[in-house]
Formats: sequence, structure tokens, C-alpha cells
Amino acid sequence: MTDLVTPTDADREDAAAVRDQGVAHMKWWGWGVPGVAFHFEDKPAFAPFVLKAVGLDLHASSPLEQPDFAALDVPASIADAPLREAMGAAVGADRVADDDLDRVVHTYGKSIRDLIKVRAGRLPRVPDLVVYPADEAAVQAVVDAVVAHDAVLIPFGGGSNIAGSLEPMPGESRPVVSVDLGLLDRVLDVDEGSGLARVQAGVLGPSLEAQLNARGWTIGHFPDSFTHSSLGGWIATRSSGMQSDKYGDIADIARGMRVARPGGLLDLRATPSASTGPSVREMILGSEGRLGVITEAVVQVHRVPAKRSIHAYFFPNWRAGTKAMRQIAASDVHPAITRVSDGRETGFSLSTSKESKGFGAFAQKALFAFLQRRGWNLDEMCLSFIGYEGEPAHVAKQRRAVERIVKRNGGISVGTGPGVLYDQKKFDTPYLRDFLLDRGTAGDVSETSVPWTGLDRMHDGVIAAAEAAYESLGRKGWIMSHLSHSYHSGACLYFTFAFVMGDDPEAEYDVVKQAIQQAFIDLGGVPSHHHGIGVEHAPWLPDVLSEPGIDVLEGLFAATDPGRNLNPAKITAN
Amino acid sequence: MTDLVTPTDADREDAAAVRDQGVAHMKWWGWGVPGVAFHFEDKPAFAPFVLKAVGLDLHASSPLEQPDFAALDVPASIADAPLREAMGAAVGADRVADDDLDRVVHTYGKSIRDLIKVRAGRLPRVPDLVVYPADEAAVQAVVDAVVAHDAVLIPFGGGSNIAGSLEPMPGESRPVVSVDLGLLDRVLDVDEGSGLARVQAGVLGPSLEAQLNARGWTIGHFPDSFTHSSLGGWIATRSSGMQSDKYGDIADIARGMRVARPGGLLDLRATPSASTGPSVREMILGSEGRLGVITEAVVQVHRVPAKRSIHAYFFPNWRAGTKAMRQIAASDVHPAITRVSDGRETGFSLSTSKESKGFGAFAQKALFAFLQRRGWNLDEMCLSFIGYEGEPAHVAKQRRAVERIVKRNGGISVGTGPGVLYDQKKFDTPYLRDFLLDRGTAGDVSETSVPWTGLDRMHDGVIAAAEAAYESLGRKGWIMSHLSHSYHSGACLYFTFAFVMGDDPEAEYDVVKQAIQQAFIDLGGVPSHHHGIGVEHAPWLPDVLSEPGIDVLEGLFAATDPGRNLNPAKITAN
Repeated sequence: MTDLVTPTDADREDAAAVRDQGVAHMKWWGWGVPGVAFHFEDKPAFAPFVLKAVGLDLHASSPLEQPDFAALDVPASIADAPLREAMGAAVGADRVADDDLDRVVHTYGKSIRDLIKVRAGRLPRVPDLVVYPADEAAVQAVVDAVVAHDAVLIPFGGGSNIAGSLEPMPGESRPVVSVDLGLLDRVLDVDEGSGLARVQAGVLGPSLEAQLNARGWTIGHFPDSFTHSSLGGWIATRSSGMQSDKYGDIADIARGMRVARPGGLLDLRATPSASTGPSVREMILGSEGRLGVITEAVVQVHRVPAKRSIHAYFFPNWRAGTKAMRQIAASDVHPAITRVSDGRETGFSLSTSKESKGFGAFAQKALFAFLQRRGWNLDEMCLSFIGYEGEPAHVAKQRRAVERIVKRNGGISVGTGPGVLYDQKKFDTPYLRDFLLDRGTAGDVSETSVPWTGLDRMHDGVIAAAEAAYESLGRKGWIMSHLSHSYHSGACLYFTFAFVMGDDPEAEYDVVKQAIQQAFIDLGGVPSHHHGIGVEHAPWLPDVLSEPGIDVLEGLFAATDPGRNLNPAKITAN
Repeated sequence: MTDLVTPTDADREDAAAVRDQGVAHMKWWGWGVPGVAFHFEDKPAFAPFVLKAVGLDLHASSPLEQPDFAALDVPASIADAPLREAMGAAVGADRVADDDLDRVVHTYGKSIRDLIKVRAGRLPRVPDLVVYPADEAAVQAVVDAVVAHDAVLIPFGGGSNIAGSLEPMPGESRPVVSVDLGLLDRVLDVDEGSGLARVQAGVLGPSLEAQLNARGWTIGHFPDSFTHSSLGGWIATRSSGMQSDKYGDIADIARGMRVARPGGLLDLRATPSASTGPSVREMILGSEGRLGVITEAVVQVHRVPAKRSIHAYFFPNWRAGTKAMRQIAASDVHPAITRVSDGRETGFSLSTSKESKGFGAFAQKALFAFLQRRGWNLDEMCLSFIGYEGEPAHVAKQRRAVERIVKRNGGISVGTGPGVLYDQKKFDTPYLRDFLLDRGTAGDVSETSVPWTGLDRMHDGVIAAAEAAYESLGRKGWIMSHLSHSYHSGACLYFTFAFVMGDDPEAEYDVVKQAIQQAFIDLGGVPSHHHGIGVEHAPWLPDVLSEPGIDVLEGLFAATDPGRNLNPAKITAN
């Protein structure tokens, strides 16, 4: 509900400027497409909120100029002629790129650390070649040629990764090939009787949905990165979308998979469920390129529901909100979305609202006054979204059942208005991060999952850890959170944090990020619920898998990629 | 709904005779406990049914004598003194067994091939020692000592496996140690707020449920083997229970795991969901001992539902029944059980009913006459069970929604009577197999999963393949099927087959079993939906994982067990 700008037709034309090889890329220095940006002039509460949260005076600060690509010192490609020829033979000579822009675009994902580095021209290692295979056979040829030439291969989908899964390791002395899957973007087949679609792995969210919607289907997978992330990337990082309570995480959705591995194509039959030994399917899921390049998947698809609505609720405080979510998860009701923001995030959401005029403004004031008279502390009030899908009668029944639980926990319904806004604006948040970065403020996200009984303790503990980190930096910082993705035994907690950067933004970011990650572990959570491990979260993997678990993972990688050609040192160092 | 005998108190006393080390075992020559058996005298339709199905005249045949253990030629243990001492040091000297009965009990699972072999005294290789560790530390010590002595370790839960996962390989020249987990049978802790229970892996179904029920909880996992299978065994074979539509398969239920591996304990944190690389959890699931010995798991548990009912329905034919199941899966309704038997299995179920007297008999006759007048062919009529759980209002709503779908597909409701019987008798079927085996008739089961669009074709194709196999053997045989475990994209098809054995039962069984398994593959299914791979289903694994998928599995095993000490040659040959 950040109410950001969305692209105009003119913006879309600008975006075409970064298209190369027929594949659209995000800006090299930030999220999304050129010409699209967050602006706050029509949001009167935003500047005061930012001033209070991180001490940044938006009216006094002026944004940085758009970074100048020409000023970057991009290391030359070390790809030798035989490798170039082999890549040309694999994908066609015109689909091998080595220009600096293409290589820089494929160097990092879009974490705040990535953006800080790329804007500062910190490019210790960039891919030496970028290849654009147009079909599965070309991907397989690339994989085999990379191994034959003892090069390194890193698959690239939409480039939205925030775990450091895409970057070449700084010390890598072998040539690095980024394999951009962008041309593999088609829905190949829909088995309408089974609700299964065969889809190429490079397709981005909007194109996938458009192709499916045209036939009356949806995948039901809508991560925040949706507009710029790919099916293959979702699988390779175990992504989760905001309607996962109904449709499942990508690990549930993706049934069959085809993976180009050294020596040949790994082809897992799509099956509703199977008892066929340790799950190879679940080894591909989350593998971040270390087992090969995902070329295709058979995914579950659903008929576009007859009715879909997102209702907003207010709870008097966080405890009441999470208790309601837990009671919903334990009940016979199964909404498509369960989400509740803490008081801080609720305050942030309200601050990003456009200036309300006329009756709306009066109504909001009247509501808040009423709640205060009921004893609510508006700073602790929590905004919640619950999504319902299905036949209209089912939606109505589910809503009634949920609202009984909401009421029992002291919450009130605010109708569908905010939900409609949330639904429209849900993919725009990353633009806000770029807006802040342009003004010297680092913002990023980190998420975990935790059993219900540990959830409130996790929430409070992570906030305390971040605040201690800000304190140690002598910096004013902000952190806020929401619960999303409910499961039988617990839920995901998603944190957004921001602070004004000093002289060494990377080191400062590390202090805050590490404090948050360590709190995840200390309080019974996991290093990531749906963003993957990469290099960013790897230090905390032994804490949840144990050292023998890491040995198993490293054994798997060593056995299946003895030459360490496939995105080495991601997930585990070995 | 086979309506078999259940144990009396006297039977339970007999059963104590096979207890050893404080761990109850099944009969060495068959399923379950002594003194319990199927009998047909009170089921007037049964003998005619068997005569028609497989040509066996029960009135003319007399059962075999109970096999004589003393007549078996059990190979001597090859465990040397150092290994025995090491095992004694690990578990305590009194918990190391090498007597013939204990070793034979731990040689096989309970597939029909296992029973044929053990009754015939075919024992090319039996475990050399059986150890009964009483705690996790003892299991870890056993694992480390087995590796140090280059012996072979095979974990043993309830011994109900039917995929050949438990047997020592005939050519194994190293000593083989069967690790019986029976003493690790306690629920250690219930996190009531999160619905998670920490449970030792050796616990059998009834004890687990009793311990959970005492606190108001249930695991909701009820495979046919429930009375004699263990939590660790469920995990090691990716088991599925009959209420999986609500509670999930064991792969969903088991969140955290502890596994004794060479060098140390692998300890996976229990988490609602995580994005932490290739899933080590999903490598342990289905691993059949090849990655170590599962000692403990954290499993999802649910409050015992306020209401639980199983309703029976009749459909005019198989197509109508499966179409209804598919429509239920695609609807907003989520029953706990969806099951429909084909006409053959429905006929079998009716034949196992006790003689009906008084009004019941009249009612059944009247119902069938009515259906015939409606144009139903009673031989094609299909019995279905749908289970509902939750709050009474939810159960009522779900039932109404399901019954609209049933009606739309020409089905009729038969009320809860047969469902109550099914629920009471569901774990007794294996006793019927022993009854038939005692009379020279082999019966076994084989199951697959398949997308909805391939389901009817799979059903008909497997039956045709089995009938062709019977034909090639010149034997009268029987095969019947039901659909159970519905998923978004398909369901499990479960086949039961039987034939009167000739001179070489094992070879004859192979002909039938292979025909069925090959049909699974040829028609788009998997080698097993919930029984595991072992040695029995291994030949068909490459068909669904592809050779590169097998390479990945074999790489995992080679890397994590270089000495091939952990149940070698199961799942894959290498």
C-alpha cells in the first residue's frame, strides 16, 4: 500500500532502451525500468514520517544524479577465443554479448548491498560473457561447453535476487559466463484437466500471467519481485508469493522440472506426489544454479477464481493481530492471504497515502478518533489484509468466519478500499528503496519463518537487535515488520529496515543485517523464508542444518559438479 | 471394509510371546500378531467371490500349517568379536541379539515376495546382529562403530516395508547389523501453541496416537500399515496416510529431523517453511537408511477435531466416481478423505460383509433393485468414502458441497454406516493376505500417482497389463483398484492383485508385478506413491528421474556414504 507511481506508456518506451537481445533488463543502477520513480509531493505525511524514522529531511535533501555508466571502471572480459567460439556455437554468435553494459547488468542482483556496490563502481569481478540461449538445446550446449572449457556458469532470470546468488566470486580466475534465460519465455502447454502448465523457465511474472490468463488460468504465485523475476528464479531460490496460503509456495507449485546438467538433461516427471527416494525435485528447488540450469517446469495452475477480494482490518496491537492469524491458521478457514503489519509498518503505510480530501479525510479522522475513545493507542494499531478467493458463496462464508476471529481479538473491519489499493500497488515497493538510496538512505528487507509460539518473541527480538545495531553505529535507524504466509505450525515474519548511510555504507549495512540475521537464528527461525541463501545468508546455514547437514549439501555439490563450474561458492562455500 | 477379526485380549497375550528386548515384533512368517486371523465362515459371499476371482475353492482347500521355525536353515552370524564388542559398547551387551529368530524377524519386510521367501526358508543373507539402542546417543554410537568396522547398517522400524528396503543384499560379505528403533517410542514434547510434537522415531502408530490423544492431539497420519509401522519408517519411505487430503503426506507433516550420521548427528531445525538451498529435509525423507538413522522428528499435530465422519456414496461407474473426485479437488471444498473403489473392489468389499439379517438385508436388496431399475449395472457400481473433519458446522457445509458434486455425477449417498465399518476395519486388510497365502494364493498391492487427465487411462491400462500377465502365465488372476489421496493435479491409484501360485511363486509374482509397474511408467505415473523404492521398485526409477537424476542421487549417496555402510544398494544400485 505504498501508493507509488506506475509506468506510463512513455516510461515503457524508455524501458525499451535497456532491451538487448530481445530481453528486457532492469536499470543497471536500481530497480525496475527507467522513468518510473517514487515521489512524495502528493503524500503530505511521508516527509514527516521519514524525518522521524531515520532523521532524513526530504525537503532539505536533493537526490543524487542518475549514476553515469561511462564513469564506471569495468574490468575487461577474460573470455578467450575458444570459449567465445564455443558459446557462439552453442547459442549463435549474435546471442553472445561482451559489452560492458550487458556484463554489468548481469553482475549483481538488487539487494541494497548490490546497488551500493554497483553505483560506487565496485566491480571486482563481472561476467566475461553473457549468452542468450533461445531454446533448451542451446542451454544444454552452453552448460556442456562451459564445463569443457573449465569456465564458470551463472544462470540469470530476472535479476531480482537479493541474496548475492548472481555475482561472480571476486577471486574467480576462470572466465565467467552469465546465462540469461530471457528468451525462454513461453507457456508451452496447459493440461486443463489436471491444472498443470508446461512453461519455459525464463518467463517473467507478468508475461506468465498474461499467457495463462488468456486461457482462463493463473499460477497464483505473486512474490513482491513479480514484475522482474522469472519462473526459473523462483524455483532456484524457493520463492513464495503473497497468495501462498491458497496456492502454496513455489516448492508446492512446481511439479516437473527440466535442468540442463553437464552431460545431459535432467528431466523429472511431473507428478501429484511420489515416494521415489530422496527428492531430486526438492534438490533442484533452491539450488541457485549449483545443480545446473533450469530450462522448463511443469507448474500447477488454477482457474482464475470467480471472486477475489482483499479485506482490510485494524487490530489494536501486534499481539492481537498475530493471535488472530494463528487462530485463522488453526481453524477450518483457509484464506488466500493472511497478513498483518506491526504498528510501525502500519504507520509507514498510512504515511504513504495520498492526501485525502473531502469525505475520505473526515471518515479517517472520525474512525481514528473513535478508536482512540475505545482506548486504542494509534501508534500500536496494526493494519491487516486478508484475501479470499473462490466461488462468491465460499468467499462470503470464509470472510464471515475470519471476521468472527478478527472480532474476538478486538479487531475491526475497514472494508475493501485499502485492499484494492494494496493489490494495485504491491509490486511498487522496491522503487521506494531507490528513492531513499538516491538520498543517501539504505533500505532493505530480511525475512524468516518461525513457529507460532516463538513469533511475538521473534518480532520484538529482531527489532531490539536492529536498534542495538543502529545504536552501535551511532545512527538513527528504522525497522518495521509484517507477518505473511501462514502455515499450520507458524508463519513468515518480514522485516524492512532503513538508515541514513555514513562513510562506509557496506560495513554499516553489515552491522545491521548481521544483527537481524543472528536474531533470526537465536530466536528459533531460519536465515530466509523465501529469498534464498546465495552468499548473503550462507553464514547462518549451519545453524539450522547443523554441520552434518552442511556436509550433506557440500557432498551433493561436490559429487554433481566436481569441477566447480556451476555457480560455485553459493549456498555453501564448498 | 474387509470386516476382519481384530485381536482379543487373549491374542494380545500371545503377542507378548514375540516380544523381545521390550520390543514387539510381527510374526516372522506373516503380518501382525499371533492369534489374529481372517475368517470367512460368517461372510456368505466371500467364498463364491474368491472362487470367481482367482479360481480358489475355499471350501475345498485347507490352510497350510503354521510354518515351523525350527525347520529353517538360518545361516550363522558372521559378526566377529570386535564388532560384537563395539555393538555392546554402543547399546549395552544385553541389547545385542544374535539368535536366529531375532535375525530372521529382521531379514525381510512384509511384501508377498518377502513372505513367500521366508516361509520357504529362502534366507541367502540375514542380519548378523540385531541391536536395540535405547536412546539417541546409542544410535549414534552404533552408526559410528558400524562405519569404523566397515560393517553394514540397516535401520528397522516396524518391519512393515513392502519394497525390499530392509533385506541385506544377498552378496554382502561384510557383517550386517539391523538397528531396531523399537525402544525409541516416546512423544518427548508437544508445543501446543504451534501444533508441533517432538517424537522419537521408533514409535509405532498406535502408541504415537495414544500418547498424542492423551493430550488432545493427533498426527492425522494413518497409513494401512499404521498398527505396525513407525514414524521413522514413514519418513524414510515418504509414507502417506488415508487422511492425507487434510493432514498432508508425511513429507508435509515431518518438519524437523534428527539423523545419526557417520561422524555426528544431523539436526534440522523444525520450521514452517524455509528457503535454505536444496532441501536436506527432503533428502532425509525417502532415504531408506542410506543417509543415516532417523532418531527423532518434530511433526505437525492437530487438535482432535470436534467432529469426524466418513460418508459412503455409490457411483454408477468408475468414470463417474473419478470425475467427482476431480471436481472435488478443483472446488473450494477440502475433505479429509477422498476415496473411490472401482467396480471390482466394490464387489470385493461387498463380498467381505458379514451375513446381513433382518432389515439390513432387505434394505440392501431394495437399494440394489432400485439402482438396477435406474439403469445401473451393479458390477460397475463404485463405492466411495469421503471423510469430513472439523467443527460440526464446517463438516455439515463440506458434506453438502460434496454431495452436490456427487449428485451432479449421478452418485447417491449411503450414509455413515459403511464408513464407520471402514474406519474400524481399515488396518485389517493385511491379515486377509496371510489367509490367502496360507491357501496358496499370492496377493499384494502396488500404487502410483498420475495427473487427473491420465487417471482413467491408467486405471484401465494397469488392469489390462495385469490381465495380460495372468494370461501369459496361464493363470486365473484378480486385480482391483481404488483412488485415494487427491491432490490439485491428480491422485493416487492403488491396485490390489491376487492369483493362485504355481511351482515358482516368486517368478510368477515378478511377471505380474513387473507388468503393473511398467504400466505405471508407460501411462505417465510413478513407481510408487507412498511405499518407497527399496530394491523392488528401483528398476523404474530412471524412467521418472531420468539418468541424470539417478546420477544426482548416486552422487549424493557416494558423497555421504563413501564406504557404502548405510543400507547399500537400496533405491539405486550404487
